[in-house]
Amino acid sequence: MSSTRTASNTTAPTQFLQTNGHSYAYRRFGEGSHLPLLYLQHFTGTLDNWDPAVSDPLASAREVILFDNAGIGRSSGEVPETVAGMAVHVMAFLEGLRLERCDVLGFSLGGMIAQQIAKDRPSLFRRMILVGTAPRGGEDIMHLEKPSLAKHLQDPRNSGYAVLQKIFFAPTTTSQAAGEAFIARLMQRKDDREPASGPNVANAQMTAFREWERVTGERFADLRGVHHPTLVMQGFHDEMIPVRNSYWLAENLPNAVLLVYPDAGHGSLFQYSESFTRHAAAFLSSDSESAAF
Amino acid sequence: MSSTRTASNTTAPTQFLQTNGHSYAYRRFGEGSHLPLLYLQHFTGTLDNWDPAVSDPLASAREVILFDNAGIGRSSGEVPETVAGMAVHVMAFLEGLRLERCDVLGFSLGGMIAQQIAKDRPSLFRRMILVGTAPRGGEDIMHLEKPSLAKHLQDPRNSGYAVLQKIFFAPTTTSQAAGEAFIARLMQRKDDREPASGPNVANAQMTAFREWERVTGERFADLRGVHHPTLVMQGFHDEMIPVRNSYWLAENLPNAVLLVYPDAGHGSLFQYSESFTRHAAAFLSSDSESAAF
Repeated sequence: MSSTRTASNTTAPTQFLQTNGHSYAYRRFGEGSHLPLLYLQHFTGTLDNWDPAVSDPLASAREVILFDNAGIGRSSGEVPETVAGMAVHVMAFLEGLRLERCDVLGFSLGGMIAQQIAKDRPSLFRRMILVGTAPRGGEDIMHLEKPSLAKHLQDPRNSGYAVLQKIFFAPTTTSQAAGEAFIARLMQRKDDREPASGPNVANAQMTAFREWERVTGERFADLRGVHHPTLVMQGFHDEMIPVRNSYWLAENLPNAVLLVYPDAGHGSLFQYSESFTRHAAAFLSSDSESAAF
Repeated sequence: MSSTRTASNTTAPTQFLQTNGHSYAYRRFGEGSHLPLLYLQHFTGTLDNWDPAVSDPLASAREVILFDNAGIGRSSGEVPETVAGMAVHVMAFLEGLRLERCDVLGFSLGGMIAQQIAKDRPSLFRRMILVGTAPRGGEDIMHLEKPSLAKHLQDPRNSGYAVLQKIFFAPTTTSQAAGEAFIARLMQRKDDREPASGPNVANAQMTAFREWERVTGERFADLRGVHHPTLVMQGFHDEMIPVRNSYWLAENLPNAVLLVYPDAGHGSLFQYSESFTRHAAAFLSSDSESAAF
């Protein structure tokens, strides 16, 4: 249950929290005086999909907590078919850890869950980093049937992590090289790995994306009630969740800074991990009421 | 002709360069190992409109050069009626200084001039910071007749700098307080001030904005040939040049990072001067081929 002192996602042991009738797999490492930082993961991603170059530098000044939602990796239960359902598991997990307040880094699907929690239980989060994600009512969210994505997903040469290099990175030499380095970092962890997600996970999460695209009431109005200092980040060439979703998110949140990277797709945080973690650390170390850092 | 060592726009003496049949007013101060940074100013602004909170911190690691284009302040000549015409004066000025390469910070109109030079003589600039500006073919650029702006410009209580607080800052308590502090900083300089711009300046520059809005050929195609590492910055609530212009600019430049501030209007760099100069310094101190910093 306690924090480990192995401050890398390459070596931190997977732990299991029994609470809420579930067993949740997680990793917790790092130390420092700042609030813990909770990592919420992308479509089909497990604990092993957190690039150590994105988790480890931030673990030098705080605990970081990586989390497998219900039905992912070795977490028990069924994958919920709504973002709100996934948010319930995150809240139960934090309650089980007796963590009443933390910062959050939500990537893609994880960013949607973070938004849902910020609305449902605002006191849980102090500051939010939302990367490559979309507001409720956003557009063109994870349509894997689009030719630009389907051609990579259906290519039999792209087995295992190889497909991530294609769909998370821009089709340029520089971005693809960054993608190759990213895959190599994910492979550094040798033992105590999570099982990869199967079609059941993908199908349930896809159902959640379709529900999240629905506009209910005045579009984006909910965001105006979310006052957390927020850093919204994305790559300009994100094919999985186009950048206009980050524009809407940051324009309608009352207290958000927007930072967008060139020559990058969905995996901008992995491509520019050094820049990303430097900006994230500066943002998280601020006590200002403003998101500006 | 030489650089002064009075590293503040509150006290740096105005200098005059005779070249190209003109006398150009400028200020040059600061020192350090980095390339000099050229400041290109907004609509009707003179040397005295450069907030010392935006010029002075950057002068600790480089020379900064503030410049009055032709017909502005005590610079001789007529104000050109095109951005390209203004760019010609900047290039003549730099040639007169024997400066073959520098970094540039272009704000609003100044950002358009920087883009024009980056296209016409790319070798002059190493890195560009473009704040509150628009690409050629952008939209809703400086339409002062819009009710949201006209109400402040036509209010007789807004004399002198007071109007800047209204039109450069968002209509919130926090942003207006930042605007008040900005005006106070502009007033710190007591002597050797530039004459304020009159209607002739405004009219000629307005003609240039209208010409800059025109789309010629494929919209934004020119930007794809501008490869300078660029930092594009703006406030989400900019009424003078709406933020979608920065989206287009950063999306179409091949090598631009976009950073947008909440609760801020056209004067985001003045409102968040500490954050702005910290990011600008990090960006300018990078030798990477990528704009990511």
